[in-house]
Amino acid sequence: MSHYPSSLLKLIKHLSRLPGIGEKTAERLAMHIIRSSRKEAESLAASILEIKDKIRLCERCGALSDREVCDICSNPHRDESLLCVVEQPADMVAVEKSGAFKGKYHILQGALSPMNGIGPDAIRIQELLHRIREGRVKEVVIATSTNVEGEATASYIADRLESYAVNVTRIASGVPMGGDLQYVDPVTLQRAMDTRRAV
Amino acid sequence: MSHYPSSLLKLIKHLSRLPGIGEKTAERLAMHIIRSSRKEAESLAASILEIKDKIRLCERCGALSDREVCDICSNPHRDESLLCVVEQPADMVAVEKSGAFKGKYHILQGALSPMNGIGPDAIRIQELLHRIREGRVKEVVIATSTNVEGEATASYIADRLESYAVNVTRIASGVPMGGDLQYVDPVTLQRAMDTRRAV
Repeated sequence: MSHYPSSLLKLIKHLSRLPGIGEKTAERLAMHIIRSSRKEAESLAASILEIKDKIRLCERCGALSDREVCDICSNPHRDESLLCVVEQPADMVAVEKSGAFKGKYHILQGALSPMNGIGPDAIRIQELLHRIREGRVKEVVIATSTNVEGEATASYIADRLESYAVNVTRIASGVPMGGDLQYVDPVTLQRAMDTRRAV
Repeated sequence: MSHYPSSLLKLIKHLSRLPGIGEKTAERLAMHIIRSSRKEAESLAASILEIKDKIRLCERCGALSDREVCDICSNPHRDESLLCVVEQPADMVAVEKSGAFKGKYHILQGALSPMNGIGPDAIRIQELLHRIREGRVKEVVIATSTNVEGEATASYIADRLESYAVNVTRIASGVPMGGDLQYVDPVTLQRAMDTRRAV
């Protein structure tokens, strides 16, 4: 590596700090940038800077946004009586892609994890309760992950919401659609069996 | 994807143009850049621009360099009677890493490939002959790849150099060091057998 010119070494070092990018991949990416046009390299660099200038968290729901209040929060056509609670911005995007939800979101920015010192005050639970107190939400759909932290977060939120006049629901878990039953793990299958419903 | 703010979409689009980076990876990289400090993002962007400003091909050997003449070409301690011919800058780096060569390099910037319309004029063969004519080179070590194009390029160069007073050699091919014989492909093994030497 030290046989490359220093400006190239510097770029390789920067690129290999990105997640999932090893030294070999960083080397290949840097070579590509060297071969690409000046204009392409400039627009890549500019979009990296632009994102630091523009992207912030929506002050209402916590989604990534380039405005103070995000598109979904400021959209009058979205049902504000329905509130979907997720852990991360990417989870919200996954739900949006499904097209199955027309309400609004609340992004916790994490999940409870006492082992890692993440308690209720470290994620946006107070902000959630505040939104519920405003009185327009009728149903809270908890869509945290189905791992230990996500399930614990879901129970904690359900408990906290007990004293409010809202319905609290949890997205269903079970066998994924299109899944071959023989490859479904036992825990998922057990859950699918326990929560079976009439046809 | 369209559920992300536009500046984020733009960065994801730019990143997914890099080789080996799909849309999912680009999304993950962009999220990492969002979470990283402003200073880190700025130095990544700056090093992308810097490389376009500084990196050029050494006008003598064709290696990547941040000067007109690269470090190796301008190093008086490198043996200028020995010239190693490689296809790509990365191949030169591989030879340098081995520590086995103390001469100078000539980077062809490609290999002959008549099928793809790459003839002798498309790679730096004239420049090579020009360097040989200067008379200081005593041995040309051809270190092109051992695939069809690399072998064809090696033969072509050997033919062209016949009329010059230089020794032309080819790096050895055979079983890789540390390799388990049972996993070596038949073509390599055949070559290793044909070019066996006395111990």
